[in-house]
Amino acid sequence: MSNSLKYPSGKAGLGPGSLVHVGDVHEPITRLAVVSYNQNHYEQHSVLSPDEITAYHNKETITWVIIEGLSDASVIEKIGEQFGIHSLVLEDILNTHQRPKLEENENYLFVVLKCLMPNQDKFSVSYEQVSMLVLDNIIFTFREKTDPLLNPVLKRLEKSHGRARSAGPDFLMYAILDTIIDQNFEILDRLDETLVSLEAEIFSDSNPTLPARIHDLKMEVIRMRRYLAPVRDMTAALLRSESALIHEHTVIYLRDVHDHVLRIIESLEIHRDILSSLLEIYLSSISSRLNEVMKVLTIFASVFIPLTFIAGIYGMNFEHMPELKWAWGYPAIWGVFISTTAGLLYYFRRKGWI
Amino acid sequence: MSNSLKYPSGKAGLGPGSLVHVGDVHEPITRLAVVSYNQNHYEQHSVLSPDEITAYHNKETITWVIIEGLSDASVIEKIGEQFGIHSLVLEDILNTHQRPKLEENENYLFVVLKCLMPNQDKFSVSYEQVSMLVLDNIIFTFREKTDPLLNPVLKRLEKSHGRARSAGPDFLMYAILDTIIDQNFEILDRLDETLVSLEAEIFSDSNPTLPARIHDLKMEVIRMRRYLAPVRDMTAALLRSESALIHEHTVIYLRDVHDHVLRIIESLEIHRDILSSLLEIYLSSISSRLNEVMKVLTIFASVFIPLTFIAGIYGMNFEHMPELKWAWGYPAIWGVFISTTAGLLYYFRRKGWI
Amino acid sequence: MSNSLKYPSGKAGLGPGSLVHVGDVHEPITRLAVVSYNQNHYEQHSVLSPDEITAYHNKETITWVIIEGLSDASVIEKIGEQFGIHSLVLEDILNTHQRPKLEENENYLFVVLKCLMPNQDKFSVSYEQVSMLVLDNIIFTFREKTDPLLNPVLKRLEKSHGRARSAGPDFLMYAILDTIIDQNFEILDRLDETLVSLEAEIFSDSNPTLPARIHDLKMEVIRMRRYLAPVRDMTAALLRSESALIHEHTVIYLRDVHDHVLRIIESLEIHRDILSSLLEIYLSSISSRLNEVMKVLTIFASVFIPLTFIAGIYGMNFEHMPELKWAWGYPAIWGVFISTTAGLLYYFRRKGWI
Amino acid sequence: MSNSLKYPSGKAGLGPGSLVHVGDVHEPITRLAVVSYNQNHYEQHSVLSPDEITAYHNKETITWVIIEGLSDASVIEKIGEQFGIHSLVLEDILNTHQRPKLEENENYLFVVLKCLMPNQDKFSVSYEQVSMLVLDNIIFTFREKTDPLLNPVLKRLEKSHGRARSAGPDFLMYAILDTIIDQNFEILDRLDETLVSLEAEIFSDSNPTLPARIHDLKMEVIRMRRYLAPVRDMTAALLRSESALIHEHTVIYLRDVHDHVLRIIESLEIHRDILSSLLEIYLSSISSRLNEVMKVLTIFASVFIPLTFIAGIYGMNFEHMPELKWAWGYPAIWGVFISTTAGLLYYFRRKGWI
Amino acid sequence: MSNSLKYPSGKAGLGPGSLVHVGDVHEPITRLAVVSYNQNHYEQHSVLSPDEITAYHNKETITWVIIEGLSDASVIEKIGEQFGIHSLVLEDILNTHQRPKLEENENYLFVVLKCLMPNQDKFSVSYEQVSMLVLDNIIFTFREKTDPLLNPVLKRLEKSHGRARSAGPDFLMYAILDTIIDQNFEILDRLDETLVSLEAEIFSDSNPTLPARIHDLKMEVIRMRRYLAPVRDMTAALLRSESALIHEHTVIYLRDVHDHVLRIIESLEIHRDILSSLLEIYLSSISSRLNEVMKVLTIFASVFIPLTFIAGIYGMNFEHMPELKWAWGYPAIWGVFISTTAGLLYYFRRKGWI
Repeated sequence: MSNSLKYPSGKAGLGPGSLVHVGDVHEPITRLAVVSYNQNHYEQHSVLSPDEITAYHNKETITWVIIEGLSDASVIEKIGEQFGIHSLVLEDILNTHQRPKLEENENYLFVVLKCLMPNQDKFSVSYEQVSMLVLDNIIFTFREKTDPLLNPVLKRLEKSHGRARSAGPDFLMYAILDTIIDQNFEILDRLDETLVSLEAEIFSDSNPTLPARIHDLKMEVIRMRRYLAPVRDMTAALLRSESALIHEHTVIYLRDVHDHVLRIIESLEIHRDILSSLLEIYLSSISSRLNEVMKVLTIFASVFIPLTFIAGIYGMNFEHMPELKWAWGYPAIWGVFISTTAGLLYYFRRKGWI
Repeated sequence: MSNSLKYPSGKAGLGPGSLVHVGDVHEPITRLAVVSYNQNHYEQHSVLSPDEITAYHNKETITWVIIEGLSDASVIEKIGEQFGIHSLVLEDILNTHQRPKLEENENYLFVVLKCLMPNQDKFSVSYEQVSMLVLDNIIFTFREKTDPLLNPVLKRLEKSHGRARSAGPDFLMYAILDTIIDQNFEILDRLDETLVSLEAEIFSDSNPTLPARIHDLKMEVIRMRRYLAPVRDMTAALLRSESALIHEHTVIYLRDVHDHVLRIIESLEIHRDILSSLLEIYLSSISSRLNEVMKVLTIFASVFIPLTFIAGIYGMNFEHMPELKWAWGYPAIWGVFISTTAGLLYYFRRKGWI
Repeated sequence: MSNSLKYPSGKAGLGPGSLVHVGDVHEPITRLAVVSYNQNHYEQHSVLSPDEITAYHNKETITWVIIEGLSDASVIEKIGEQFGIHSLVLEDILNTHQRPKLEENENYLFVVLKCLMPNQDKFSVSYEQVSMLVLDNIIFTFREKTDPLLNPVLKRLEKSHGRARSAGPDFLMYAILDTIIDQNFEILDRLDETLVSLEAEIFSDSNPTLPARIHDLKMEVIRMRRYLAPVRDMTAALLRSESALIHEHTVIYLRDVHDHVLRIIESLEIHRDILSSLLEIYLSSISSRLNEVMKVLTIFASVFIPLTFIAGIYGMNFEHMPELKWAWGYPAIWGVFISTTAGLLYYFRRKGWI
Repeated sequence: MSNSLKYPSGKAGLGPGSLVHVGDVHEPITRLAVVSYNQNHYEQHSVLSPDEITAYHNKETITWVIIEGLSDASVIEKIGEQFGIHSLVLEDILNTHQRPKLEENENYLFVVLKCLMPNQDKFSVSYEQVSMLVLDNIIFTFREKTDPLLNPVLKRLEKSHGRARSAGPDFLMYAILDTIIDQNFEILDRLDETLVSLEAEIFSDSNPTLPARIHDLKMEVIRMRRYLAPVRDMTAALLRSESALIHEHTVIYLRDVHDHVLRIIESLEIHRDILSSLLEIYLSSISSRLNEVMKVLTIFASVFIPLTFIAGIYGMNFEHMPELKWAWGYPAIWGVFISTTAGLLYYFRRKGWI
Repeated sequence: MSNSLKYPSGKAGLGPGSLVHVGDVHEPITRLAVVSYNQNHYEQHSVLSPDEITAYHNKETITWVIIEGLSDASVIEKIGEQFGIHSLVLEDILNTHQRPKLEENENYLFVVLKCLMPNQDKFSVSYEQVSMLVLDNIIFTFREKTDPLLNPVLKRLEKSHGRARSAGPDFLMYAILDTIIDQNFEILDRLDETLVSLEAEIFSDSNPTLPARIHDLKMEVIRMRRYLAPVRDMTAALLRSESALIHEHTVIYLRDVHDHVLRIIESLEIHRDILSSLLEIYLSSISSRLNEVMKVLTIFASVFIPLTFIAGIYGMNFEHMPELKWAWGYPAIWGVFISTTAGLLYYFRRKGWI
């Protein structure tokens, strides 16, 4: 929790539009790569400065600029100047606490997204903000980290000679969205496994750490849903968008992405309900067990306490206790013991306790 | 649970539009059957390859192609090529983790549906994805399994000389939808019986497996609702649709199907509420019983512990204990025993415990 | 429960539009009555067959046909043929598991309604489906049972010379709707009385049947709400309707009915909330009592168990126990008993337990 | 509860539009008062019959007719005849179980409102229906009771020479609405005080009447919300209204009233949430206390029961018990007592119970 | 609670539009400051009376009038007269119990806002109402308190030569909104820290004050949400507004503010869910502990009570008890003790209690 619900309070006093990176620094260096392609052509370069982008950017090819690491605000600033991006948009790129959203400007689309990635060791999710700028024939992706997340998209571009290479930057945007969102299905798979094992534990054993684990999982699901609900609004806005930057043929693909987001959110809501239900079940299983414990105690105590009292009576040292002298006193008292026990056990059996 | 909440994570790296079957394989072989009919004519054939469909497809008859088993992606691919179906639609047909939905394209309607079938042994439901492609005078149904689900529709077509034979593929689509959705009423019947028996058990006996069974049933209801909520959206979209493929006279029939879906979803919501309520009732009945157990323990312990103490006093071996020598000591102590017990019982009676 | 949540699963295999009565049979015979009236004229007849209706149906009068009992599907079929009613509508009339709804066709309105009637013995509600067909100057009401439900409407028609006799079939439809819906107020009255008595019981006594009764009542309220929510949609649709069959002057009356439905549904929702709250209160009152029981047990056990131990010490038979020979041993041990008791009672008083 | 959730079941058989007072009779006599005013002029009269209203009603002044007590239906009937009011509206005025609403007719507005008044002794609310008829230059207010509720409005009219006297009946309607709705703020104040004192009690003391009081308060809040939710719809409808009877300059004032209603409803919703939360807190505080009680019991019982057993061993009368003859037997047994106690206390300390 | 849920009941009898300060008085004196600026020019003055404002107000500069402290209603009244503000707006400025809202009048915008400020000592929030009047080239801000809240805005105006100085009063309004709303992020940070420490406590220790603290925090979150929900509506209305006072270029900045409000409200809703979940977890951890306590008690009592009874038997003083004379009686009884204990411990182990 400590990590993912933090807020950028440090900037409250600053003016709007001032370019500073806000958020955790995952990469100390800002790396740039330029991919430029069309149906016949594909090349990929690492560049050192945004100034070099122009060298690879021409009318015949689609240019994809990948920026990894956001600590160097000057890189973002230069891109903004070169391509006429509003300063508030640049500020949103640098601030990694954005809500996912779509902003349509005259010359470009701005997309902010959260990428959810499962952690290896146990069920927990780490979040990365990915933002995209889609212009006429150039697309920028801004990421916090350097990892192989977008490699499948790169590979497809490199190898494929189909739609991906011939279509415009809107199709590339779709391919990136699709890759990032389908990542969530893996998380749902792992969540599912975790739920199944939790369910098994609840009915097998009274594990006092169970509520804490259910709580943690529920918090994770709530947090995931928090990041994905605005993604749904964003893809819906993309579908409704009348921007000239989104070609008619791409809409059916975006509808596919939107369907996936809906499916993921529905699953998360069901998982949240299941987790709430599991906690209730856990509570009721504790109550059932407590009931059983108390029955055992009650039966033992209720049977032996009266017997002990009777034994106590004949342990008294009064001088005049006629029973003590009877020949059949001792066997008689055993009769009392046995019949009292039998009576009590019959009473508890009739109550359904034994 | 393990079965129905799984997600297709295996495809995240693949490109969109690649045709691979995603989901559990229920049938190793993909079977094709062609039904072609008009008001005067009815014939049904098994075919081995999609190429043979054309032989039975002509302007005078309606052609219904039934595909059972989705493991052979090439069959779907060939159909897509022959009839001009978008590759994303083909991909959705092969991926059996779709949300139910309606997609209207220029030349065809694409309907994805979940068919819910009750299992024989206990209350649980198995899910099958059924998708339909409705073209001008041909209709395709894609199913995961081979079972007699659509037999009633086939029989009606064969025997009837009424509306079913004279109307277009939209009416056939309606007949299939109707058959699949009315299947749910049987499930609701069985759910109802299960609920009645659960209710009876709660008040008769403290059954520790009850919460688990209520939980399982609730999960099943939640899952059913999850599959049916998008079906409602789909039938509503069919009603609103302005596609030329849906004839005016069919709309009143589709309204009927939509009404059934609404009725089923309402029932599921009520069942979910009832199940939640049952768990609460179960918890309160456990608490009531615990209360009763504790009262019995408290009465026994509170009456006999003081008596045992008194008996203990006169069991002490002090040399100077004048009571022990009194002639009436022993009867007197019995008086103390009896009056203490009476006093305590009077106290508990006033408290309303006995 | 067993009765009112049943679904018509028996028809799943049948074709749409086949006329069979679906539901419980309340009347073995189907009775027909024809009322024909205008401002100056009123007559009422029993008829044996739908063919006789024409005899009483003319342009100058409004004709009201009352059908009671739905077991004879042929009666409905004949009416459908004579007056040009769609076969799906006829099917809906015969299937008494419909959702309340309004269907506007070119020549007629079709209204399905649930009539809720309180049972005499205890709080429970029985349901009857009432459907109406409103044509130009004829109205049909279809009922499952023969009972005096619609008598007030008949009496008003017979006696009155006001609006009811001069207005068209839409006003008669309103009068019937009004009578059926106002029936619910009586049910709400009885529900209210039941709630007040439940509330009184909760705080007076630990009644183990209370949760079951609250549960039953809640289920009844949920079921009532389930039948009335679509009635609200139906009256709203009537208000919005642009059908020529509903005259402008009737709309203000329909608004009145709609208001009543809203009022009833709001009350039901509040009652449901109250019932949920009552169960919580019951649980908390059980917990309070358990707490009290445990305090009594704890005080008794904690005071007497140490005393018994002390008495036990001096009941030991060691040869060398100097205290036993002291002259003041026995009085001293009483001092120990009394001071231990006082100390423990002081401790419990400080804890706020006594 | 018995008072405010009653429904008018007595009228179910009657025809619509029949004028009978439905509801509790608060005033046996129906009083009429006429206020007539313009910018320069103000007079107030008691009248005995609706016929006298015409004497004070002319084009130059605004006439305000105040009717208190609804038992005499003939008064309402006469007013209806004189001013052309629809019989259903008159019926609604006489039936004090109306939902608050606005009805716009051609010549008049009809407003029904619930006035909530705090009772003096404890937190509870009594309800009065106030309805208003706003015509071109005359306004009628119908009330169930005679009390000083509308005196502030009368005083302002009498004294002021501002807007209130120069504006039309719509402004007077606003002033009455405003006075009635602002009444609720006093109730919210008292509700607030009650909540603060409840909160204090929960954490100070185990008061078994607390759940009942929380429940009562919650029911009161639910009931208040029930009456105010349609008031919100009503004021919103007034704002949207295009009736010529509401002058443009009054709209800003009505917006103010609407804001107040929104504010009150929001507060009620928060109070309902707080009350639900309080009940949970109460339950958890009971559980905490029970836990503490049980710990004390467990410690006492677990320490002394083994000691008593050991003492019991050496209280046995076997002839051959070598320990009894040992010189150090008695001191040794004390050693056993002390070390057992120390061991158990150490065990409980490690468990965190002491 | 006592502070922030109070309502202005004292004004119920007063007429609308009467100017009196309603709410807590934070500042006994009303201070006025005038800032006037354009791209080249910046000056700031303290003034004593609203009459002096005109001296600094001219067509070439933007004038910002800061009013701190609302106790002196005459100041507000004079401003209203000078600039033609509606009396209801003035009344809303003086009443610090307003809902946040936007009112668009012909010549000015009226914005009411709640500023939430964290208190230093523990997690609690204090509320201040800030209202703004935006006219053509003058803006008024009305505040309850004198504190450095708006200093960052003043500093930016003074130093900057960018957008802030060249844009109109709508941009200044944005800058103030932004500063006030970003304040909330600091509160969310502190809320987050408090939640993390609460979570840690729940699982480490049974702290009886925990439910009270969770409840307090939840109430604070509910209250914050109550103030921020209408702020969201207000910023949304600003975005939709077609007022000429809001320039096209400012809209993108307002969208930024709106995004922040959405983000804050989402976080609050998640925090509310977390707090509800924490209480449930706390309850379940108490139940788990109770279960453990009861097991210890049951094991101790169930083992030693039977043993004590057996010892009690041989402590009886019957003359004829043959076992007492047996040479192996005492060792035999030890055998009975040990085997009984072993049997019981085996039984509890099989039950999974030890």
